[in-house]
Amino acid sequence: MKAASKVTKSAKTIGKKDLPVAEIRRYLEPGPIVLVTSSWKGEDNVMTMGWHTVMEFTPSLVGCIIAGGNHSHAMIRKSGQCVINIPTADMLDTVVGIGNCSGADVDKFERFGLTTQQAKHVDAPLLTQCFANLECRLHDKRLIGRYDFFIFEVVKAHVARTPKYPQAVHYTGDGIFTLSGRQVSRRAKFRPEML
Amino acid sequence: MKAASKVTKSAKTIGKKDLPVAEIRRYLEPGPIVLVTSSWKGEDNVMTMGWHTVMEFTPSLVGCIIAGGNHSHAMIRKSGQCVINIPTADMLDTVVGIGNCSGADVDKFERFGLTTQQAKHVDAPLLTQCFANLECRLHDKRLIGRYDFFIFEVVKAHVARTPKYPQAVHYTGDGIFTLSGRQVSRRAKFRPEML
Repeated sequence: MKAASKVTKSAKTIGKKDLPVAEIRRYLEPGPIVLVTSSWKGEDNVMTMGWHTVMEFTPSLVGCIIAGGNHSHAMIRKSGQCVINIPTADMLDTVVGIGNCSGADVDKFERFGLTTQQAKHVDAPLLTQCFANLECRLHDKRLIGRYDFFIFEVVKAHVARTPKYPQAVHYTGDGIFTLSGRQVSRRAKFRPEML
Repeated sequence: MKAASKVTKSAKTIGKKDLPVAEIRRYLEPGPIVLVTSSWKGEDNVMTMGWHTVMEFTPSLVGCIIAGGNHSHAMIRKSGQCVINIPTADMLDTVVGIGNCSGADVDKFERFGLTTQQAKHVDAPLLTQCFANLECRLHDKRLIGRYDFFIFEVVKAHVARTPKYPQAVHYTGDGIFTLSGRQVSRRAKFRPEML
């Protein structure tokens, strides 16, 4: 973890825009591995997370598993906040590194050269190198005790202006990742209300 | 929907093996669109579903959103069972077709030429054209009322012998899909207990 006050600027500048929170499915529904930042009592942390699902458009709900063994679990449970940051394929080694050490032992921000910006509605920092940052507030905690399942409301979404469909990374276990491939449209075959 | 008794054989034969249910993350964690089959009182149905997450290895738990507007919702709620079938990219038009009509109006199995086999532990049928079939029993229904969120236990998993990483399809909204790209290994960078 690191001191929360050390907000730094990105070495890699990504121009971002606000995205209506009801539209975050575009990035989260395809199942990318994500980096979850948290902040509690002046300390920040970041973890790699792959078990999540969109749950509702409005309010914009996301459910995810954050196991009790993670240093972030208690920080997020106590603060009731986090940021879900979505990395692109060029960050794969950073993603793996973050997932293979603990914030209880090291300052991951320093070790992996992560740069941050202040979020608008939560204390957890935005990772500037990621193409999307979703500010989240804990919406429902009833399944945390039994399943480590947190239901968050996305209250603010920052996404890169381009590209519209960045190459994300998907985990399959055993140290193997699948990269996002090409997009194909079947828009013409949808009923309008199903889009 | 269709009469549950019409079990047919696949035109496209896929050799399958049993997969330990604790290992289904390989196919489900990357976030593919899936086809969910159900059976209730002699009728079968199938729907397209994209909001799901792995929740636990043992028992093998999967959580997913099946909105109340879907004809399948009541069938799965009442039967407490379903099969999660994972299609490959060559089935994309079938996936879109299934998602844009209702089992209340048509027999989707007939319309889309779906072939089925009997599951081992549940009444819902396996879709033989799909490369993976996960037999599921409802494990926890407490979030169905509030969020349409079903928590299933995967009790049996059938997967294609090859390829190990089939090309799945990921939905991003607006009629646009992302296809799975290539696999990359970072296995050497993982701590053994993190694999």
